[in-house]
Amino acid sequence: MATVLSVSGSPSASSRTNRLLRHLDNRLTAQGHEVIPLDVRTIPAEALLGADFRHPAIVEATALFARVDGIVIGTPVYKAAYSGVLKALLDLLPQYALTGKTVLPLATGGTTAHVLAIDYALRPVLSSMGARHIVQGWFTLDKDIAVGEDGGLTVAPAAAEALTQVLDQFSEALGRTPILAAAG
Amino acid sequence: MATVLSVSGSPSASSRTNRLLRHLDNRLTAQGHEVIPLDVRTIPAEALLGADFRHPAIVEATALFARVDGIVIGTPVYKAAYSGVLKALLDLLPQYALTGKTVLPLATGGTTAHVLAIDYALRPVLSSMGARHIVQGWFTLDKDIAVGEDGGLTVAPAAAEALTQVLDQFSEALGRTPILAAAG
Amino acid sequence: MATVLSVSGSPSASSRTNRLLRHLDNRLTAQGHEVIPLDVRTIPAEALLGADFRHPAIVEATALFARVDGIVIGTPVYKAAYSGVLKALLDLLPQYALTGKTVLPLATGGTTAHVLAIDYALRPVLSSMGARHIVQGWFTLDKDIAVGEDGGLTVAPAAAEALTQVLDQFSEALGRTPILAAAG
Amino acid sequence: MATVLSVSGSPSASSRTNRLLRHLDNRLTAQGHEVIPLDVRTIPAEALLGADFRHPAIVEATALFARVDGIVIGTPVYKAAYSGVLKALLDLLPQYALTGKTVLPLATGGTTAHVLAIDYALRPVLSSMGARHIVQGWFTLDKDIAVGEDGGLTVAPAAAEALTQVLDQFSEALGRTPILAAAG
Repeated sequence: MATVLSVSGSPSASSRTNRLLRHLDNRLTAQGHEVIPLDVRTIPAEALLGADFRHPAIVEATALFARVDGIVIGTPVYKAAYSGVLKALLDLLPQYALTGKTVLPLATGGTTAHVLAIDYALRPVLSSMGARHIVQGWFTLDKDIAVGEDGGLTVAPAAAEALTQVLDQFSEALGRTPILAAAG
Repeated sequence: MATVLSVSGSPSASSRTNRLLRHLDNRLTAQGHEVIPLDVRTIPAEALLGADFRHPAIVEATALFARVDGIVIGTPVYKAAYSGVLKALLDLLPQYALTGKTVLPLATGGTTAHVLAIDYALRPVLSSMGARHIVQGWFTLDKDIAVGEDGGLTVAPAAAEALTQVLDQFSEALGRTPILAAAG
Repeated sequence: MATVLSVSGSPSASSRTNRLLRHLDNRLTAQGHEVIPLDVRTIPAEALLGADFRHPAIVEATALFARVDGIVIGTPVYKAAYSGVLKALLDLLPQYALTGKTVLPLATGGTTAHVLAIDYALRPVLSSMGARHIVQGWFTLDKDIAVGEDGGLTVAPAAAEALTQVLDQFSEALGRTPILAAAG
Repeated sequence: MATVLSVSGSPSASSRTNRLLRHLDNRLTAQGHEVIPLDVRTIPAEALLGADFRHPAIVEATALFARVDGIVIGTPVYKAAYSGVLKALLDLLPQYALTGKTVLPLATGGTTAHVLAIDYALRPVLSSMGARHIVQGWFTLDKDIAVGEDGGLTVAPAAAEALTQVLDQFSEALGRTPILAAAG
């Protein structure tokens, strides 16, 4: 199957975005994909903000983006857009780092008023990086993501169903990537 | 092969957008696709602006969108966005009229300063209508589209090459649509 | 005081957008402004869609935009953006028809998920037309606008309070327009 | 006169954005404003990326935003939008940190194709933070900013004239802020 990079763009260690992405990784793994998790906050801050493309952590992240077939990009919505931390990582990648890639954009936030941030803010950035196919994304309300005492995650039924659907569309689009590569 | 609706959203009969789309139709036809041209300005004005979903011209346009596999959407850029005429047609279609469809967004304009109108203005609207795959689009400068005395169209070499590339990516994505439909 | 053009961009005669704008006109009038209502749907359809800048109805609308100090722009949200009908009118105005003007953007819609359409879709268009000051806008939910048997309009308390606030900020910004004009 | 915070959102010490903003500060100072320069890259990286609102550097930046009347926000355009570093700072400010403020958005970049990033990407974020008045901004091409051997900066004539104009409109809007504050 395909290789997927699952990028969480939250600056917070305890964030719902991070937990949600790791939760979704399981479904992709169960579908036979190899999933590589990447929490942007684990990249050294001075590497992200130093505008140094040769920093080992940036070289490593760039190589990860280059070798995978698909990328899940998850971000909390702050100030009606994606997080600055996530954008700081994208800024350090080559202009066309997403060429040929299939991308699933996801967001979390406190209010449905921010739903359009995926399509009006995040998607244009991903498109400018040459993404081949940005599938339909999903915005999950914070209140629909519950963390149990054991650290386990529960997603409210309607949100869980929607997430399953966009994940499956992403997985299906990934399945067609090799055909594209052969024809391209 | 696939069936493609090629929609020109210019209000002007002599527009470069219209001529460019009809020119590109030839390439899609040569690739074996059935192409149905639709110039929005040929739809009766009172149907487009009357908010009457039952007007025969709107019923017919809706049926066209429903039956095709792919859609080319071309628009001139006015006031940093797509044309009002094009949006008036989209407003009359069902909310999810693009579900399962492959879409190629194209724009023409007088200045490169408006290039981002495709990704920041047109693409979010197409995404809200449920498009399955909106491939990379292209913005062509008016000055790169020349109309000969015989009405024939010549596109400047660099622009022609870019248009060929996005058309071929669209055509390739269309070729994978039946696989999706079968699996979906 | 100031002269204000109050533009409703709904294609529907019975729309909540139209009623809401006419309702808000009263408050502006009570504050001493001269308010000129303009429902885009009353402009002949063939004038709006015909790309004919010399049509008498377009010449008249252009003159109205030119002579006022401030403009209220109200639109229903369709397909995650402003209405095509409204954009068709804006397309026919001069590129810098809003130079020196104070503008209040308003929207109505069925879901809070479309709140960002004002700032991500409508505001960039108004900005491209040279608006001097686009004040904070407001998105009103359809369900918060009730029409009585006598045609009277009732706005839910929280929405009414927010609308009063943006109207007053608009009115205040208008009050400073002559100072700008003198200094400009 | 007014107090202005002049924020440069470039991660690079040698960036044209930084130099341009410091150059423009002179004009604002000459007009009688008190100008406080802030280069985002001088804020400790771990403060910007650590999601720690109580970090002394963040507390200090928040206090700066709170005490000024006006804010110049300058950013390089990367991947068709503002820099991640700038957004990381904005993410750490209160949701309505720009309430009552007058804001001048500026951008620099290598191609005119990115001009719309100001209005489609940066302006919606500033608007979501409650800005009272975001004046018309300006996008300056990198090639129009020349750095002399002595570190002095020269801006190409047409760009310099446009920058002077938006600065003066900003300065004028600032002059009206106290009136607003008194009336508000």
